[in-house]
Amino acid sequence: MKQTGRCCTSVLRSRLGRHDADELATAFKAVADPGRLRLLSFIAAQPSAEACVCNLVAPLGLSQPTVSHHLKVLTDAGLLARERRGTWMFYRLVPERVEALRQALALPASKTSTRRSA
Amino acid sequence: MKQTGRCCTSVLRSRLGRHDADELATAFKAVADPGRLRLLSFIAAQPSAEACVCNLVAPLGLSQPTVSHHLKVLTDAGLLARERRGTWMFYRLVPERVEALRQALALPASKTSTRRSA
Repeated sequence: MKQTGRCCTSVLRSRLGRHDADELATAFKAVADPGRLRLLSFIAAQPSAEACVCNLVAPLGLSQPTVSHHLKVLTDAGLLARERRGTWMFYRLVPERVEALRQALALPASKTSTRRSA
Repeated sequence: MKQTGRCCTSVLRSRLGRHDADELATAFKAVADPGRLRLLSFIAAQPSAEACVCNLVAPLGLSQPTVSHHLKVLTDAGLLARERRGTWMFYRLVPERVEALRQALALPASKTSTRRSA
């Protein structure tokens, strides 16, 4: 999900073209990792939905390079924004981006219940 | 996302544990592929949100073994259900499962807008 401002086409409300499918798959790949999901969850749970990178290693039991890699993937996907404050980098959840990804899985109103017979 | 009936813990409304993160990452992996997204989209666009496997190869420009593999991943993830009718297998969208995955990305009410300053 490059930050083009057009993410995310709904998968289920219209026929997804090849380009949109590529873009959306990249966005879902960003959240398709347990370490990245736990990082997102940890940051979202902070009072201002942001955290210093210095506080992100110990709670998750991941190595510093692994955390750095995951933060880069999430930032590249637009799900986190970062800001330097003095020595440290702070990471903040980007709710609009999360919501856009969530909306990509929105069902059409006519298909919100399961059809079990034809 | 095994079909345990408990998927999906919200990533952003509570601190995600290791087990839930593993389970959810598996579910997102199922949709983190452009071919699988286009298959889901194609099936969802059918009048009854279901399609015969015999109609799924040509429209997407993927090989039959690739389509079969993707259908298996989506079925294992619970996002599609299958049913044999005579010679052919039919695949149907499972809206409840899609909705559960979507809800895993739901934001807490207090974090629905971006904080830009502390």
